[in-house]
Amino acid sequence: MYRFAKRFDGIGGSEIRKIFGLLAVPDMISFAGGNPSPELFPAETLAEISEEIIAENGKSVLQYGGTLGVPAFIELLKYRNADIMRETDDIVVTSGSSQGIDFFAHTMIEKGDVMLAESPSFLGALQTFRLADADVKTVTMEEDGISTTELEEKIKQYNPKFLYTIPTFQNPSGITMSGEKRQKVYDICKKYGVLILEDDPYAELRYSGQALESIKSYDDSGIVCKLASFSKTISPGLRVGYAIANKEIIAKFNLLKQGADVHTSNLTQTMVMEFLKRGYYDEHVKMLCTEYRKQRDAMCGAIDKYFPQGAKRTNPDGGLFVWVTLPEGVNARALFEECVNEKVAFVVGPPFFAEGGHENTLRMNFSMPSIPDIEKGVEKMGRIIRDFV
Amino acid sequence: MYRFAKRFDGIGGSEIRKIFGLLAVPDMISFAGGNPSPELFPAETLAEISEEIIAENGKSVLQYGGTLGVPAFIELLKYRNADIMRETDDIVVTSGSSQGIDFFAHTMIEKGDVMLAESPSFLGALQTFRLADADVKTVTMEEDGISTTELEEKIKQYNPKFLYTIPTFQNPSGITMSGEKRQKVYDICKKYGVLILEDDPYAELRYSGQALESIKSYDDSGIVCKLASFSKTISPGLRVGYAIANKEIIAKFNLLKQGADVHTSNLTQTMVMEFLKRGYYDEHVKMLCTEYRKQRDAMCGAIDKYFPQGAKRTNPDGGLFVWVTLPEGVNARALFEECVNEKVAFVVGPPFFAEGGHENTLRMNFSMPSIPDIEKGVEKMGRIIRDFV
Repeated sequence: MYRFAKRFDGIGGSEIRKIFGLLAVPDMISFAGGNPSPELFPAETLAEISEEIIAENGKSVLQYGGTLGVPAFIELLKYRNADIMRETDDIVVTSGSSQGIDFFAHTMIEKGDVMLAESPSFLGALQTFRLADADVKTVTMEEDGISTTELEEKIKQYNPKFLYTIPTFQNPSGITMSGEKRQKVYDICKKYGVLILEDDPYAELRYSGQALESIKSYDDSGIVCKLASFSKTISPGLRVGYAIANKEIIAKFNLLKQGADVHTSNLTQTMVMEFLKRGYYDEHVKMLCTEYRKQRDAMCGAIDKYFPQGAKRTNPDGGLFVWVTLPEGVNARALFEECVNEKVAFVVGPPFFAEGGHENTLRMNFSMPSIPDIEKGVEKMGRIIRDFV
Repeated sequence: MYRFAKRFDGIGGSEIRKIFGLLAVPDMISFAGGNPSPELFPAETLAEISEEIIAENGKSVLQYGGTLGVPAFIELLKYRNADIMRETDDIVVTSGSSQGIDFFAHTMIEKGDVMLAESPSFLGALQTFRLADADVKTVTMEEDGISTTELEEKIKQYNPKFLYTIPTFQNPSGITMSGEKRQKVYDICKKYGVLILEDDPYAELRYSGQALESIKSYDDSGIVCKLASFSKTISPGLRVGYAIANKEIIAKFNLLKQGADVHTSNLTQTMVMEFLKRGYYDEHVKMLCTEYRKQRDAMCGAIDKYFPQGAKRTNPDGGLFVWVTLPEGVNARALFEECVNEKVAFVVGPPFFAEGGHENTLRMNFSMPSIPDIEKGVEKMGRIIRDFV
């Protein structure tokens, strides 16, 4: 009976968010989520900080605030990002980095405009782009990031408004774009006047290899919008991230944010600011890396040990995910059903591909499960996969 | 150089938000804002609650949550709204009620679709509708709410998708739609299949007169989406509101919210929930009404005393605003400049009219200034207005 906007046609909501209901049964070992480990949240420190800032500064923390964010927090973020920011850039605090994806899409896209995404890519972003009426075309991922040959071809073919990339420890593939490719992707996009939306929420969770420059750091022409988040490093429940881009782009974000939520909660912004200012952050991220490194090593080791030959995995230097390509002919959806019956879960790969296919792929998360559960769950999955091969 | 979406053409950001910079000078008496009084925030209680819930429940409060909201909070909101909810309705927690406006617009509007708003109406909402590509047509406000004759005419003329109304203590006018008119507006909209977006953030701040039923309470056919907020009653800095509507509509909100901010901060949701559950809320709202009543009375009394004959004001039974119509020929923008020079400020009326005009109108807020400042500022404004008449 409702005359809904056509943008919802064919959109059913994240396949991933829907299966989470299925997984809330006792003894389920889940590699399906993308959550940070709740065991590692700095709860005690945040409890203390929140109490203090409301008691001491309630009149401003509980009041309306500026749309771009708490001024002292923005200053701190500028200071911390001095190496990648230009004078023509500005920062807006977002309610998680997803909001930055949404804003960028609505800033650039009109119905039918083409944009490019990696294939595979983050499901939530793909849905956001579609709901913003974008025509999403994709570029194939290689071991060191997207194919630059294909990128240039697609740009020539479609004249896209922007490229969406997660260059570091990508969700879902765990792949990191090499330094060489970052430069090349930037150069190609600059050449053709294509903007880059660089979504980089995992970059600080590095467990091996050399840190790489953000694509934003090459940006001498204002074409890169960089999104960052504290969801993976402090707490996703607080919903605090930020975007760095040319002032003209941030001015549009400001207009959109006035309508979206007026501003991000002053309380959660100030909590993150104080966590940084009091010097907890760097230590905390170091601890996270130590713990997650063990979990990643356990998962990669177990896959190598228990999965049949012909199953291939990525080799993530950080982040939360390993991506597995099973032997041709193994259907990840059928495998999923069987695995859930035996109380081990993962996420099937096909929904991450905007253009379909890839039935033999799956994503496995190693930040949530304990090391014994990783060992047990991967062993079980290995047994079940063998029945499918 | 950027290929921005055309929706930004001619949109310059809220005129109100821009003048706030101007007003941050010492000794300025400001009737310009729309903020609740920071003196009345329940800071001590919220400080205690936040500390407790993070310390005791950090693993869930700091983690990702469900898109619709914290389940126990949704249950509580359903319980408190049992009198207006139907079985076919559902609730989503929003990051302030502005987010509900944004979602409703994106759920219904495609480029060029017509919707109706009151004239005058909330500036932030008007901007949101325009950024959602809506063609905003208006219906004139009368002393007891919009003209129902004009409503029906405009519906016949434009076939709008929905009517946006703030029925209680409207921003900016302070006008409340009468009970009779609520029924009539509902009946007309139902007859023509026009949805109603009922934005009701001020309803609990009533200082005189009888409480009226929400338009949602008449809704036997699923055409009303009601927005509510804790910004005016607990704290705007927390960014917590909610929407009640038919499940089909909430399902679309759910999809939009996955992209917008995934979910509202679990921390701020849980703080509001605990503030309600521990029984602070009703007492607190009662205290707010006692204090704001005095401020409203002081402002209305001072306007009657100091403004020249020929200046008319509304008679708000609640909320945060009084609306003033100056004698014909007095230009509120010119008056504003003069007043700011003399350190008293208000908001000019014209921007609240989607279709322009009304140069002799202005909005005055009484929740922020103290009673002595209300007396002093209105007296000063009265003197300056006399020079303009």
